[in-house]
Amino acid sequence: MEQPSAAMLVIGDELLSGRTHDANMHYLAKELTEIGINLTEARFIRDDPAAIVSSIIELSKRFDYLFTSGGIGPTHDDITTDCVAEAFEKKASIRPDALKILQEYYDGKDIELNEARLRMARIPEKADLIENLISGAPGYIIENVYVMAGVPKIFQSMLKTVLPNLKKGTPTLSLSIKLYKGEGDIALELEQIVKAFSELNFGSYPFNENGTHGTNIVIRGKDKKLMIKAEEKVRTIA
Amino acid sequence: MEQPSAAMLVIGDELLSGRTHDANMHYLAKELTEIGINLTEARFIRDDPAAIVSSIIELSKRFDYLFTSGGIGPTHDDITTDCVAEAFEKKASIRPDALKILQEYYDGKDIELNEARLRMARIPEKADLIENLISGAPGYIIENVYVMAGVPKIFQSMLKTVLPNLKKGTPTLSLSIKLYKGEGDIALELEQIVKAFSELNFGSYPFNENGTHGTNIVIRGKDKKLMIKAEEKVRTIA
Repeated sequence: MEQPSAAMLVIGDELLSGRTHDANMHYLAKELTEIGINLTEARFIRDDPAAIVSSIIELSKRFDYLFTSGGIGPTHDDITTDCVAEAFEKKASIRPDALKILQEYYDGKDIELNEARLRMARIPEKADLIENLISGAPGYIIENVYVMAGVPKIFQSMLKTVLPNLKKGTPTLSLSIKLYKGEGDIALELEQIVKAFSELNFGSYPFNENGTHGTNIVIRGKDKKLMIKAEEKVRTIA
Repeated sequence: MEQPSAAMLVIGDELLSGRTHDANMHYLAKELTEIGINLTEARFIRDDPAAIVSSIIELSKRFDYLFTSGGIGPTHDDITTDCVAEAFEKKASIRPDALKILQEYYDGKDIELNEARLRMARIPEKADLIENLISGAPGYIIENVYVMAGVPKIFQSMLKTVLPNLKKGTPTLSLSIKLYKGEGDIALELEQIVKAFSELNFGSYPFNENGTHGTNIVIRGKDKKLMIKAEEKVRTIA
C-alpha cells in the first residue's frame, strides 16, 4: 500500500514516570489513519536534550513526516525548540511573526507578555508557524517535522490546522468481525484465510466481555469487495 | 541518580492505527518508578519483523532492561517470539517446560491443546519462563529482555511475577504543588528556584479545571528535606 509514513515523538518525563497518561498518540493515530498516512512508530522519551536531538534526526530521516508533542511552553523544562534547532543546525530566536501573534493574544487578555512568555516566540529559522487557536503560542513546521504542544486540546487544534496540507494516501479500509471463540480455536482456520487473501492484512485481537472470551478479527485493505469476500470466509469459522 | 534504566517496546498495528488504546506503558511506568527503575524510552511499532528485530537489538543494548508487550499469542500475527529469537540468534522451538504448562492449563479447562495453541510453547533457547496466572501461556526472559503479553490483565500479572527479581534503584520521591497561576506567570521565579536546587528535578505542567488555569509543579529527587525546602520556595510564588 502506497501511503506516506509518519512517526511521532512524545517528549516529557511525566509520561515515562507514570504521572500522566498520554492522549495525543491515539488521537494522531486515528487522524492519520483516516487520511491514509501510515503511523509507523511512536516514541516516548524524557526531557533529555541528547535523546530529543538524536530522535528528531533519526525519525525525520526515516519517515515522510515526524510529529512531536510537548516541551514548547514557557518554563525551564520546555527544551524542544532548542533541540529541534540543534537537530537541523539552525538558530532559534524570537521571531517577529511569532512575537506579533503572542503580543496580540496577550493584549487581548490583558496579560503581560513577560520574558517567560517571550520564550514561546523563539522559533527556528525558516520554520513555518502552526496556528494555536487555544492559547496563542504557535507550533511550527521545519522541513518534515511538525512541532506541536503537549496539552491535548492544543495538540488537537494544531493538528487540525496542518492536516489539510499533508500529502495523503489511499485510506486503509477496515472491517471488524466479532467471533465468540478464543484465538486458539480459530487460529488455524484463520491462517488459511490469511494465506488465501494475501493482499489483505488481518489482525486478531482477543477480548473478554464479562467472562465471555472471543476474538475480534480486523481485516484491513483497500479493496472493499475483496474484504467482504474475506469477511464471509471469516464468518464461516464461527 | 543511580537507577537502572529501562525501555519498553510495544508491538502491534492496532495501537498505531488508533484501533485500541495502550494501557501497558502507563502501568509499567508507574511500577518501575516505584522501585527506582528509570523508564527512559517507550517505543510503539507495528507488526513488522524487521522493525521488531532491530528495536530489540538496539534497546536491549542501550538499557539495563527491555520490556516488550504484544505478539505472543496463537495467531498468524503473533510474530514476537520469532523476532526475539532472531535478535539473539537463537532457535525458538516447542519447549517441554512450556508445553507442560500449556497441557496442564488446557486439560484443566477441558480445551484441546491444538496446533495453534502449541505455538505458544515455542520459546527461544535458554530463556526463562514467566508465569501467566491468567491464561496459561508463559512469557519469558532472555538476557535482559522481558517478553510479555499485550492483553493488559496478562501483562500486569506477568509484570508482578518479575518485579521482585529486578535490580532496584533508590526510588525517586516526588512532591506536587498546585499553583493557581499560569505557567507564563511563574516561569521566571520558578527558574530561579530550579537553579538554586540543582540536585532536584522540577517539572511544570499546566492544567485547566473548568476554565481555571493553573500549573502543577512536580519536584522529584531523593532528599526529602531538600524537597520540602524547595516546596516552601515554590509556594512563595503564588
